[in-house]
Amino acid sequence: MSSEDNKRSKDKTSKDKFYLYWLNDSRAHRILWTLEILKLDYEVEIHLRDPETFRCDTMFDIHQLGKAPMLKIIFADGSEPLFLLESGLIMQYLLKHYDPENILNPEKEADKLRVDYYLHYSEGTLQHLQISILINSVAKKIAPIGLKYLAKVFGKGLNNGYYIHEWRLNLEYLEKKLKEEGTGYFIGDKLTAADIILSFPVMENVFDNEYQIHKLIYDDRSLTKQYPNLAQWSLMIKNNALYSKITQVMNALVEEKKRSSQ
Amino acid sequence: MSSEDNKRSKDKTSKDKFYLYWLNDSRAHRILWTLEILKLDYEVEIHLRDPETFRCDTMFDIHQLGKAPMLKIIFADGSEPLFLLESGLIMQYLLKHYDPENILNPEKEADKLRVDYYLHYSEGTLQHLQISILINSVAKKIAPIGLKYLAKVFGKGLNNGYYIHEWRLNLEYLEKKLKEEGTGYFIGDKLTAADIILSFPVMENVFDNEYQIHKLIYDDRSLTKQYPNLAQWSLMIKNNALYSKITQVMNALVEEKKRSSQ
Repeated sequence: MSSEDNKRSKDKTSKDKFYLYWLNDSRAHRILWTLEILKLDYEVEIHLRDPETFRCDTMFDIHQLGKAPMLKIIFADGSEPLFLLESGLIMQYLLKHYDPENILNPEKEADKLRVDYYLHYSEGTLQHLQISILINSVAKKIAPIGLKYLAKVFGKGLNNGYYIHEWRLNLEYLEKKLKEEGTGYFIGDKLTAADIILSFPVMENVFDNEYQIHKLIYDDRSLTKQYPNLAQWSLMIKNNALYSKITQVMNALVEEKKRSSQ
Repeated sequence: MSSEDNKRSKDKTSKDKFYLYWLNDSRAHRILWTLEILKLDYEVEIHLRDPETFRCDTMFDIHQLGKAPMLKIIFADGSEPLFLLESGLIMQYLLKHYDPENILNPEKEADKLRVDYYLHYSEGTLQHLQISILINSVAKKIAPIGLKYLAKVFGKGLNNGYYIHEWRLNLEYLEKKLKEEGTGYFIGDKLTAADIILSFPVMENVFDNEYQIHKLIYDDRSLTKQYPNLAQWSLMIKNNALYSKITQVMNALVEEKKRSSQ
């Protein structure tokens, strides 16, 4: 890792290059969106999940943990390249070093701390519940052969017994936060990294996936009626011009890669 | 939250007061250890888990999510108190504002970034796997009545089918990291916040709990033989003077509180 990296000036950093290891249906999309918003000079390497297991073996060629996203930064000043893991850290780093004009950073110090909170909260608290609900729901696929019959029944039990309750608690919490803020955004009156980090666990995984969620939580009631502020926020995210653009581009590239690998 | 809080000088901050909401067998112990190392002026409010369900209803009186740790900071300069959640964020905040002499902070900028990485990694990647293994193992307790019989069998299947593999991958990763560093610590040649954040998921939950882990992962092989560097690091953490002291004090206070509430 390069030393003295927090002393880079805008002039020094404006020619740095970024290399994003991106996985479909993963947390990586948010980093791509951030790179795009900050107008950074980036390339994307596409990795694809196995549609049966959700795993992606090729990510292990890049790093021992095989998790997306991973971001490599090639510094224009020739200092040693930086390899960053963990979505919250990657976003903290990009905001600190590559947003001198506060495009994504909020203006107030207190609001910067609130952004940092959501960067930790999304990955430390919320995402865990969502992954567990999903894994329990696909348990039949990953359970050993002899247990496949029990898996489906039990996945439901485990989700109902613990995870769905915890997950709902968090949706209620986020709904309240948005209502209190009253601007349509999580922090202040513009898009910040708080909205970006929450785009995956709240918009993509829940509100843009309502039919699947109804099946996962065994509850057909409208999410929009239960969480009106979160629903409206999700629509705002989905319709964001840059977000729509990168999503369309990546969908097309994923389809192309799938076809060429058949 | 107070504004301009990153401009506080040592002089201004040395009289700030800290109020830690601490829960037994939780991530909160690490914040207590940090407060103690930085010689800050703190008080602890003890909350206890229900031994049957692991839940703690009284934490919900403090905050809607009911999660430990929570830290309140009362500023000596009279600015609005700060209420912090998420272990990684709390530690980042304490290191940034209350460690001017670099007791816990590493000296080099590049190492500060590596500390930040572990603060995100521990809560974003590692802890999730551990919680899931634990919850699946106690699934019988939390599953609905009709499913209790299946729960035990299935918890094993889910753990074997996904979580234990992922968890071992992470232990191997951390073992390699320690070996590469070669100092006995995760970053450089002294205790940093990286060691503190990992103390709960690695030392307390695994190496100091080996008998239970053997039962959870259905494998009796010695963890020390498989992960010698992690085992030695865990022993170093356990025998750390301040860590031992706070653990003894809190154990005594927990016993006292349990007795008085009977």
